[in-house]
Amino acid sequence: MKPSHSAGIPSHQVEIIGTIRSCFKEKFGIPRQPGMITAATASLEIFPPFNRKEMVRGLETFSHIWLHFVFHESIAEGWRPTVRPPWLGGRQRVGVFACRSPHRPNHLGLSVVRLEAVRFVDHSAILDLSGIDLLDGTPVIDIKPYLPYSDSLISATGGYATAETPAMTVELEPQCRSFCQQYEQRTGRRLERLIRELIGLDPRPAGQKSRDKEIFGMRLWDVNIRWRVTPGGCTVVHIETCQEEKEW
Amino acid sequence: MKPSHSAGIPSHQVEIIGTIRSCFKEKFGIPRQPGMITAATASLEIFPPFNRKEMVRGLETFSHIWLHFVFHESIAEGWRPTVRPPWLGGRQRVGVFACRSPHRPNHLGLSVVRLEAVRFVDHSAILDLSGIDLLDGTPVIDIKPYLPYSDSLISATGGYATAETPAMTVELEPQCRSFCQQYEQRTGRRLERLIRELIGLDPRPAGQKSRDKEIFGMRLWDVNIRWRVTPGGCTVVHIETCQEEKEW
Repeated sequence: MKPSHSAGIPSHQVEIIGTIRSCFKEKFGIPRQPGMITAATASLEIFPPFNRKEMVRGLETFSHIWLHFVFHESIAEGWRPTVRPPWLGGRQRVGVFACRSPHRPNHLGLSVVRLEAVRFVDHSAILDLSGIDLLDGTPVIDIKPYLPYSDSLISATGGYATAETPAMTVELEPQCRSFCQQYEQRTGRRLERLIRELIGLDPRPAGQKSRDKEIFGMRLWDVNIRWRVTPGGCTVVHIETCQEEKEW
Repeated sequence: MKPSHSAGIPSHQVEIIGTIRSCFKEKFGIPRQPGMITAATASLEIFPPFNRKEMVRGLETFSHIWLHFVFHESIAEGWRPTVRPPWLGGRQRVGVFACRSPHRPNHLGLSVVRLEAVRFVDHSAILDLSGIDLLDGTPVIDIKPYLPYSDSLISATGGYATAETPAMTVELEPQCRSFCQQYEQRTGRRLERLIRELIGLDPRPAGQKSRDKEIFGMRLWDVNIRWRVTPGGCTVVHIETCQEEKEW
């Protein structure tokens, strides 16, 4: 495992510098890339000894940041040499290095997210983020500023990968709209907008898209949501609060 | 070191999946960001078991790729809470998370580079790259496609960081131009263009820019280069081959 051309280190130990508290409590429904869903928010709590105020000095002057993170829920599943990315409708296999699948060697993730605010609570630095695609509890291993002049490549061409576009019209039953209004008043979280943006992307797995009228569910923050696929789109039919999450 | 909000993993072990063979044999002269110097080339050799052909299938359809790597020459120096980035002329300190300094927790680097070719030699997959900013021997821990629709953020604003621009007019003495012509014929490496692009950015440390007429030197591939700063720019005064590097 230590090849002749190696730089002399066959492996490298990284420390977790912080963790994500996100609206996404389960994998189902998470957009495939960041930036798709502006109402998808998270906070990154930075741990000691990496949470000293001066370590994020100047970060607030950047609109976006890169997060290096670990796909912690995929570690146990290992990595695969090839995967079927959703871009190709799940029909075609590509090399794992030719996509962003979590089932990759080292299970390293990379997301660019909007930096909404830098806060300090007790002895922790907290970054408020939006446009995220990160599971709650995601361990973060680095934070870097997004540098438009070198990161934004206008001339780059992108193979087969294209942006997701809204695929479904989303309706909410009256009691679900009331729930959202009350929830947003209480928490400040834009629940209805998040639901509309997320379900509008049609998060059903490719193989299940032909099964109309089935009930699907997902959890956002401390809320369980159920929706029914209809011929014209889909309707959110039930929303309820589940276990209260700790505020921080 | 294992905080209450951690996802349960205080650290994460990553394996080196390959190593960089680059024109940059020493830190001095390396551009601050990738994409600046198109003549700066490298090859990434992927190690077993990550070098199976199918693992890079489809990668050739992308013009650019992200490399996650380790700043291996900075590990021994540790990390610093604040650094003085070259953007600000080395005069101002910012938090290490607000810049791309190698002296960061976990010593993780991120570069977007142009993918010129995917080759297979013996049992190794090799990626030919250009526009690189990577030291020879850099250990790579992940390869990802650059996805323009989500990675290229036109609306992002970038704090104080700006692109480097050519700062010096570069002349080569006649014998140096002859050397470059012969070297390029023999190796195919665009040495003169690389020299002009690199030295044109004025790689001298901020504190040494006032000392004109001093000789500076750097190594590119197996070639040592010396140049003299003059009032009007700089002149390359000596080029010679040093220890022959192994072809691969």
